[in-house]
Amino acid sequence: MTRQRRKHQTKHRPKQVRKPYIDRKIGALPVLSEEGLELIEANADRILAEVGMEFRDDPEIIAIFAEAGCDIDGERVRFAPGFCRKTIQATAPAEFTQAARNPENSVRIGGNATVLCPSWGPPFVHDEDQGRRYATHHDFINLVKLHQTIPYLHHSGGVVCEPVDLPANKRHLDMLYAHIRWSDRPFMGAFIGAERAGHALDMARILFGRDMVDTSPVLYCVSNTNAPLVMDAHMSGALKTYARAGQPVACTPWTLTGAMSPATIAGTLAQVLAEAMASLTLVQLIKPGAPCLMGSFASTMSMQSGAPTFGTPEAGQMILAAGQLARRLAVPLHTVGTLSASKRSDAQSQQEGTWGLLMSLFAGANLINHATGWLEGGLVTSFEKTMMDADLCGKISRFFEGIDLSENAQAMDAIAATGPGQHFLGSDHTLANFYSALFRPDLADNNSFEQWSSEGGLDMTQRANALWKERLEAYQDPGLDPAIDEELQAYIRQKKEEKPDADFF
Amino acid sequence: MTRQRRKHQTKHRPKQVRKPYIDRKIGALPVLSEEGLELIEANADRILAEVGMEFRDDPEIIAIFAEAGCDIDGERVRFAPGFCRKTIQATAPAEFTQAARNPENSVRIGGNATVLCPSWGPPFVHDEDQGRRYATHHDFINLVKLHQTIPYLHHSGGVVCEPVDLPANKRHLDMLYAHIRWSDRPFMGAFIGAERAGHALDMARILFGRDMVDTSPVLYCVSNTNAPLVMDAHMSGALKTYARAGQPVACTPWTLTGAMSPATIAGTLAQVLAEAMASLTLVQLIKPGAPCLMGSFASTMSMQSGAPTFGTPEAGQMILAAGQLARRLAVPLHTVGTLSASKRSDAQSQQEGTWGLLMSLFAGANLINHATGWLEGGLVTSFEKTMMDADLCGKISRFFEGIDLSENAQAMDAIAATGPGQHFLGSDHTLANFYSALFRPDLADNNSFEQWSSEGGLDMTQRANALWKERLEAYQDPGLDPAIDEELQAYIRQKKEEKPDADFF
Repeated sequence: MTRQRRKHQTKHRPKQVRKPYIDRKIGALPVLSEEGLELIEANADRILAEVGMEFRDDPEIIAIFAEAGCDIDGERVRFAPGFCRKTIQATAPAEFTQAARNPENSVRIGGNATVLCPSWGPPFVHDEDQGRRYATHHDFINLVKLHQTIPYLHHSGGVVCEPVDLPANKRHLDMLYAHIRWSDRPFMGAFIGAERAGHALDMARILFGRDMVDTSPVLYCVSNTNAPLVMDAHMSGALKTYARAGQPVACTPWTLTGAMSPATIAGTLAQVLAEAMASLTLVQLIKPGAPCLMGSFASTMSMQSGAPTFGTPEAGQMILAAGQLARRLAVPLHTVGTLSASKRSDAQSQQEGTWGLLMSLFAGANLINHATGWLEGGLVTSFEKTMMDADLCGKISRFFEGIDLSENAQAMDAIAATGPGQHFLGSDHTLANFYSALFRPDLADNNSFEQWSSEGGLDMTQRANALWKERLEAYQDPGLDPAIDEELQAYIRQKKEEKPDADFF
Repeated sequence: MTRQRRKHQTKHRPKQVRKPYIDRKIGALPVLSEEGLELIEANADRILAEVGMEFRDDPEIIAIFAEAGCDIDGERVRFAPGFCRKTIQATAPAEFTQAARNPENSVRIGGNATVLCPSWGPPFVHDEDQGRRYATHHDFINLVKLHQTIPYLHHSGGVVCEPVDLPANKRHLDMLYAHIRWSDRPFMGAFIGAERAGHALDMARILFGRDMVDTSPVLYCVSNTNAPLVMDAHMSGALKTYARAGQPVACTPWTLTGAMSPATIAGTLAQVLAEAMASLTLVQLIKPGAPCLMGSFASTMSMQSGAPTFGTPEAGQMILAAGQLARRLAVPLHTVGTLSASKRSDAQSQQEGTWGLLMSLFAGANLINHATGWLEGGLVTSFEKTMMDADLCGKISRFFEGIDLSENAQAMDAIAATGPGQHFLGSDHTLANFYSALFRPDLADNNSFEQWSSEGGLDMTQRANALWKERLEAYQDPGLDPAIDEELQAYIRQKKEEKPDADFF
């Protein structure tokens, strides 16, 4: 390449601007007809009216439903057909913004926006150097930092791994602090129980100021049901705390087809919709207008072993249908991303993960948990898979920008000037579009076999191993106001001193 | 599990019926608006009118276009705006059936039907035992047999690998014979030059009978342009031979964004559409009503190295748009599947391959070449990747069956009978749907870490290595009428004796 060309390219190299969320220019894909959707909705209504849902060990919740006129039978609540839909549609917002401490990173949740979050929940981590091991607080901080280096993740997430070296009853404080301190993106609140949710709100007030927390979403809560048709007090406790504070709650039935829901898809969908609507109704009864999402984490099961399976055709169908159902409720959709049952960051992890993330995007999901790193059915966060999935998140971000139809993109002059049988490699148009025309993943090897061999013949997993270490090395501390930092640390010290350590929840 | 339950399951185990093609119950995903489509179509028309296309070294083709009233300038042909579209839409069939020698395996091409074909063209093969090596006739036969064992492949394909141990000018005879002898599915004709296309027709006449070949599609031809805007005599020679015989031709521009087409997507799409329309017009001028497909093999390029790249966001956008453009022409869409630039059957191969195949299905493609096995940018057919991709083909087949909304699938009685907080594992509904409810891939490992470890801790690539050998072992010869076999062998002997071996095309 000549010196002149190199100069040309440099001149046109655009500054990469990180986008705080995906603004989808490509629509969602329907899987059910109008008739099919009405059938699922009618069945969900029948389930809510005839079977109902149990809210266990939380009399306050039962009282809320009783006051709203629902049919109460002990802990069982039954809903008149149409009641839930009407209640949700009357006051639940179709979209909202979750603020980040760096306002450039605040995320829109709803409409055509999609927000990608990292892995959530695994007690183990895996990397190719040390293998599979229990996760620690050190791993947690490394993951928060690593995620902060990935431009295609929009959210710092929540339990990026379980730091099992910290006491189970206090570690939520250290996790919240790590997100606040080492990332400047939005993050999730503590999910289990009213007390921890309260701690998250306290810490958010220190970070954002009380006024802002009172008026804006600054935390994000996922509330799972205990399918089928149960919500326990851990979940309802967190749900009511966040809802009262006007903080968003993703009402997310987690089902395992054939175990926690019927073996068939239509049955599972009706149950998922019923559980989600009962939870969303609860949010709106507690605080009309509080932000909330319909969630769906509908997994399938191996009929040989009973183990959860991921990246399956049925999971794909279910998330596309859930997207349609959420849009008809006019609430945003929360779901899951690159799930895999694989034990390694291998071919299976990418076949299943790519399938899952693409399906969630085609479903029009608004927030996608586990967009990176999730392995072994959620038992492991993998450092290598995190980097592979990050490439996939980048591809998806570019894909959903849609096709540029500008005069430059049409390239009619370039086609005329090049003519039949010539090539575009040296054309002015190619040089002018050199840096911006095509997405560049970090880990795909496109070199010749010979060059690849001479560079060690590394597979993608091995290249990912080098990349996450490079990225951690290059991590840039976003900094934190020392006064806030001190106040947060004092708060955490105080809360830790209030009770003894315990190794159970 | 009790004896009674086991019996129950066995009773309900359905006989697996292989489907000859995918009948998509889920629609295609649009990427361009009506306005965007009209823009690309107008640009394609302008390219055809102002730049035109060159048909090289084939005066017969020029004469055909001249007679149709096109503007001829040496080998350059220019088309009045709208002429190509009108010509194609007047006579090209929207769908057709390609017959297989086993009528149960005949494939519908067009509408909601999708036909999956194996890898095409690689001079190398790869397996984990012997590594990467030049492909041989032995490999070719093994691949044909392996593909025949995969229920989710619908077509035996063409050059599943290049048997480089056979003379280049005669190997097409051995390849055609291998498809006819070892598979009973449809197959492709020889693509390069009129003479070889004639041999394929002769062999099809021996197999199917002259009458059937005269009246039914029994071969499938892919005709690539030499982008930009050129067709050479090798391609036009085969195209005209098949078109005259009423055999389907997939008119498939192969472009590399930034090299053989503009660096931008909108420009590439206009060029692809122009080249495809010129080729489709040629087919219809040669024989009005001859079956033909609009093809698109629009790849992207690494802007660092100039190497082709696969599974990219832009390739995804282009195939979705090509699907819309083909439907507006009312011809079926031909495209490509699990492409990857990876050198190994690793995570990259599945991230890129899953992306590519899903995009082609979401584009509503009717025939997908390279649905399995393709590695290293098309230089390698991999035995392991073939098996991984076969699982993906199976998943896709199940996914596109859509959601069953029958009373059994709705499972309302099962939900009522199970009730809140109970599980569905032992319910009659689960047992009755045990075998059919969920797709079972062959290679996904869903076991616990402990079980997986105790079974050797194999990754997906290693499991695939065992599986393809098992499958080859279990291959069942579909048999061939000895009289036909003898006639075919005599024909091949005769053709081989007609000229000396040569190691060039």
